[in-house]
Amino acid sequence: MAESQARISLEEFERLCAESAPFLRHYDFRTEDIGVGSARVRLPYDERHIRPGGTVSGPAMMALADFCMWAAVLGAIGNVPLAVTTSLNINFLRKPDNTDILCHARLLKQGRRLAVGDMWLHAENDGEPCAHATATYSIPPLPEN
Amino acid sequence: MAESQARISLEEFERLCAESAPFLRHYDFRTEDIGVGSARVRLPYDERHIRPGGTVSGPAMMALADFCMWAAVLGAIGNVPLAVTTSLNINFLRKPDNTDILCHARLLKQGRRLAVGDMWLHAENDGEPCAHATATYSIPPLPEN
Amino acid sequence: MAESQARISLEEFERLCAESAPFLRHYDFRTEDIGVGSARVRLPYDERHIRPGGTVSGPAMMALADFCMWAAVLGAIGNVPLAVTTSLNINFLRKPDNTDILCHARLLKQGRRLAVGDMWLHAENDGEPCAHATATYSIPPLPEN
Amino acid sequence: MAESQARISLEEFERLCAESAPFLRHYDFRTEDIGVGSARVRLPYDERHIRPGGTVSGPAMMALADFCMWAAVLGAIGNVPLAVTTSLNINFLRKPDNTDILCHARLLKQGRRLAVGDMWLHAENDGEPCAHATATYSIPPLPEN
Repeated sequence: MAESQARISLEEFERLCAESAPFLRHYDFRTEDIGVGSARVRLPYDERHIRPGGTVSGPAMMALADFCMWAAVLGAIGNVPLAVTTSLNINFLRKPDNTDILCHARLLKQGRRLAVGDMWLHAENDGEPCAHATATYSIPPLPEN
Repeated sequence: MAESQARISLEEFERLCAESAPFLRHYDFRTEDIGVGSARVRLPYDERHIRPGGTVSGPAMMALADFCMWAAVLGAIGNVPLAVTTSLNINFLRKPDNTDILCHARLLKQGRRLAVGDMWLHAENDGEPCAHATATYSIPPLPEN
Repeated sequence: MAESQARISLEEFERLCAESAPFLRHYDFRTEDIGVGSARVRLPYDERHIRPGGTVSGPAMMALADFCMWAAVLGAIGNVPLAVTTSLNINFLRKPDNTDILCHARLLKQGRRLAVGDMWLHAENDGEPCAHATATYSIPPLPEN
Repeated sequence: MAESQARISLEEFERLCAESAPFLRHYDFRTEDIGVGSARVRLPYDERHIRPGGTVSGPAMMALADFCMWAAVLGAIGNVPLAVTTSLNINFLRKPDNTDILCHARLLKQGRRLAVGDMWLHAENDGEPCAHATATYSIPPLPEN
């Protein structure tokens, strides 16, 4: 039973974001779900994320992917805010529609020191992904328990 | 002579950014130099970019790298705002100091359809890089000239 | 109907490999399936691919991923041998068992100029992947048809 | 003085390769130099590495990059054969000439647990790189000293 429950709740995760990650205010991410090594996050469509051509900017999509992976990692290891990205790779696949963008992240590997995951981004109401990313997080040494 | 001069001036580049890329306002990037396939951009230190641990967030560094690469690409091909990132890979190497972050980008390849470059990021006054990235831009078909 | 049929047959693909890709002889890949933008390839376990620690080397897995992606690309665009990899990113997730390694590739995007795909590698009889990769192929201009 | 000397000698490195890495025989790499976190390796031109179009295959270049990075890592940390690649990203930039290919690797970061480096590949007698790669190695816990 415990295995299927995220090690951080949505409430605790949102409190952590509000208290210690000021950079998130700009994006207004909505964390819709956190599981054990998985997460779903929404980037609300907003004029402030627009790039030439009228679509959501690459940096906003990279921020979304990285944030969603962080949520998935904390869903697996609990409230360890100093888990940090060591690398991220993203492929931009299609111009997204001018709507909210959703990201799904899941861990491919959860080691003691590293977690690796992939992230799918798609415009709401579009079945095809607009971007795909992979990332590695470094997990700081955890207290024994 | 012409070979050593960027195909977009700083003034023209800044006008393009102001007119068609609203997402840039958040970052307040200072484009300090554009050459033929190279650029140097500064991210001023600001509380709004801070992540847990008090340092500049990964997304802010990814945005800086991507933007600096875009400046380098336009420095090589001229004012072609629809050149778009197709992929970006970043390695975070060290926690940067709490100062401005500088990025240098240069093209490794400039083809007709793709440009590939790498980007070095470092905290001001620190000789060691805090991140290294590579990216590929897709260049839309250009009018013959 | 045509949509669901690969644009290159297994026989034609194997003939192409035998005739023009001498580097493949070393790996002895078995192409088990090619679909429209997908492929499954087996790397038979062999002492010649072993690295320190007794497991299949990273380079053998990278070769497998790249080759499997090539099969998937040709399954989507037909016999275009000069489609070439422009970039590849791989994450090694777990030490594989000392068995054959299987790779599944599928395209995430098939554009006119670029194809992007991801590849999953796993040791036979192991449900967990030992590696995950993404790659971009450049598609040469095709004759109109 | 000690700082400028590689922690593994060319002789010791070659013995390690010969004894525990059978997969290397196929490539016939020539390790020309190992420093503290740097290395230079040559891939002799050979018909067995050829891909469609007559040039050295991507997998041979990936193997070269990965091997050269391994030499650079052991040059920094000593004879630790179980240092393993966790990720590798490569951009293929130009078709190389049909000559030997040289690779230079150097570490961008050497942490206790991870080493990150980049690798430049170029055909002999060609100043322009044919490929550029970055890779991360995981360093197993070392005995205290």
